[in-house]
Amino acid sequence: MNDKRPLILLSNDDGVQAKGLNELIDMLSPMGDLLVMAPDGARSGAACGITSHNPLRYKVLSVRPGVKICACSGTPVDCVKLAIEKETDRRPDIVVSGINHGDNSSVRVHYSGTMGVALEGCMKGIPSVGFSLCDFDEDADFAPAAPYVHRITERILHTGLPSGVCLNVNFPKPSAEPYAGMKICRMARGTWSNEWYEADHPKGTKYFWLTGEYTNLEPEATDTDEWALAHGWVAVVPVTVDMTAYAALNSLKDLETL
Amino acid sequence: MNDKRPLILLSNDDGVQAKGLNELIDMLSPMGDLLVMAPDGARSGAACGITSHNPLRYKVLSVRPGVKICACSGTPVDCVKLAIEKETDRRPDIVVSGINHGDNSSVRVHYSGTMGVALEGCMKGIPSVGFSLCDFDEDADFAPAAPYVHRITERILHTGLPSGVCLNVNFPKPSAEPYAGMKICRMARGTWSNEWYEADHPKGTKYFWLTGEYTNLEPEATDTDEWALAHGWVAVVPVTVDMTAYAALNSLKDLETL
Repeated sequence: MNDKRPLILLSNDDGVQAKGLNELIDMLSPMGDLLVMAPDGARSGAACGITSHNPLRYKVLSVRPGVKICACSGTPVDCVKLAIEKETDRRPDIVVSGINHGDNSSVRVHYSGTMGVALEGCMKGIPSVGFSLCDFDEDADFAPAAPYVHRITERILHTGLPSGVCLNVNFPKPSAEPYAGMKICRMARGTWSNEWYEADHPKGTKYFWLTGEYTNLEPEATDTDEWALAHGWVAVVPVTVDMTAYAALNSLKDLETL
Repeated sequence: MNDKRPLILLSNDDGVQAKGLNELIDMLSPMGDLLVMAPDGARSGAACGITSHNPLRYKVLSVRPGVKICACSGTPVDCVKLAIEKETDRRPDIVVSGINHGDNSSVRVHYSGTMGVALEGCMKGIPSVGFSLCDFDEDADFAPAAPYVHRITERILHTGLPSGVCLNVNFPKPSAEPYAGMKICRMARGTWSNEWYEADHPKGTKYFWLTGEYTNLEPEATDTDEWALAHGWVAVVPVTVDMTAYAALNSLKDLETL
């Protein structure tokens, strides 16, 4: 790889075969050298999970000028850690994740393997971004996202991001209307209900599939990612690694005297 | 179960058999009715992961007055979701996680299944706390933690916690000195290096075990959980569900005009 071009580390949680990742590779390959280290299958909902109890493997699937693609047996976060320590001597200039098939807005950030990748890159001090499309379809249409992926990636490569902050970028499901533009948002408060689909095993036991209905707990607020997405905007939320609830520190001081 | 006593939902990420969970059950059973839904084996590093691609099962392992113990095939977060929707008609008064065998201070919160439990409880609007001991030993000594577990649980049952905030409580590894007391802290900035132990499979391929060395990036700061733990204090960090990096919102506004 050419040292003059930025090194872009890519991963995702839908797996190395996913359309969203492969379209992202096509979008970003003009912008730098790509090292792709992605899970060897779907890892949706992997969050920042790491593999503690099993050994991991990875293999190089393909190499062409400026693009090396590897598949790893671990989680999205494992992929970032392995790629950086074992597959390149260069420090990546940016970590990019996605494009995820499905929303990662609001509290979904906590469950998201896509954002696990971005948070891990951020914890390594590398500017990082996760891209997600609000469409779970395997053959979803990622084309309208391309100009935004370019602009955001270029902006990050040029200006960086504040220390300890990565970006969570969600694209509305494409419609007849083009995207309205980008909005910088906060994440909406939200909650899930009716989360289990219950089924009977032929042998008489019950089993459960995780599903659920999302409720936006602040539908009137116009500064949230949920509002932006519902109104046709690309939602960009800066996400912090430092999860300290600073506003709560004082109200808990009484614990110190218990 | 008796409606007059609070309902305490317990889970962990070390699995239902772990000493830390069973000691926690003993510590809390005088304080309320316990519903335990824990993974059927170790899930260290599960973070807020959820199970998207497989069905889940759980079974009731034991019932005694005031204590029901269930084991689930899923992640720590799955356990919380299943317990609340499928195993009780009462709304838990508190969600308690742990006591974890090993530190969950600083950036470990992102990888922690223990804190996944607490964050999930918090997202359901239930006051939640994760307890961890800085000792990975299977037979670690949890006894010095007991009075603090009592006080914190009682405080939360009595006063609640701010909306969207849960607690990450870490106990130093016990020494000859008793704990110095509790400190309300922020999470330290930290990073990991040398994360992979590389080994050769007899058939000639390489495989990797995740390991690594933690570095506190702000060793001089006296208001962090790492500092508190290193000086014999029980470290209590309020953790926020809202991961928006508010301080970064303005500096990113230029993206909106790109």
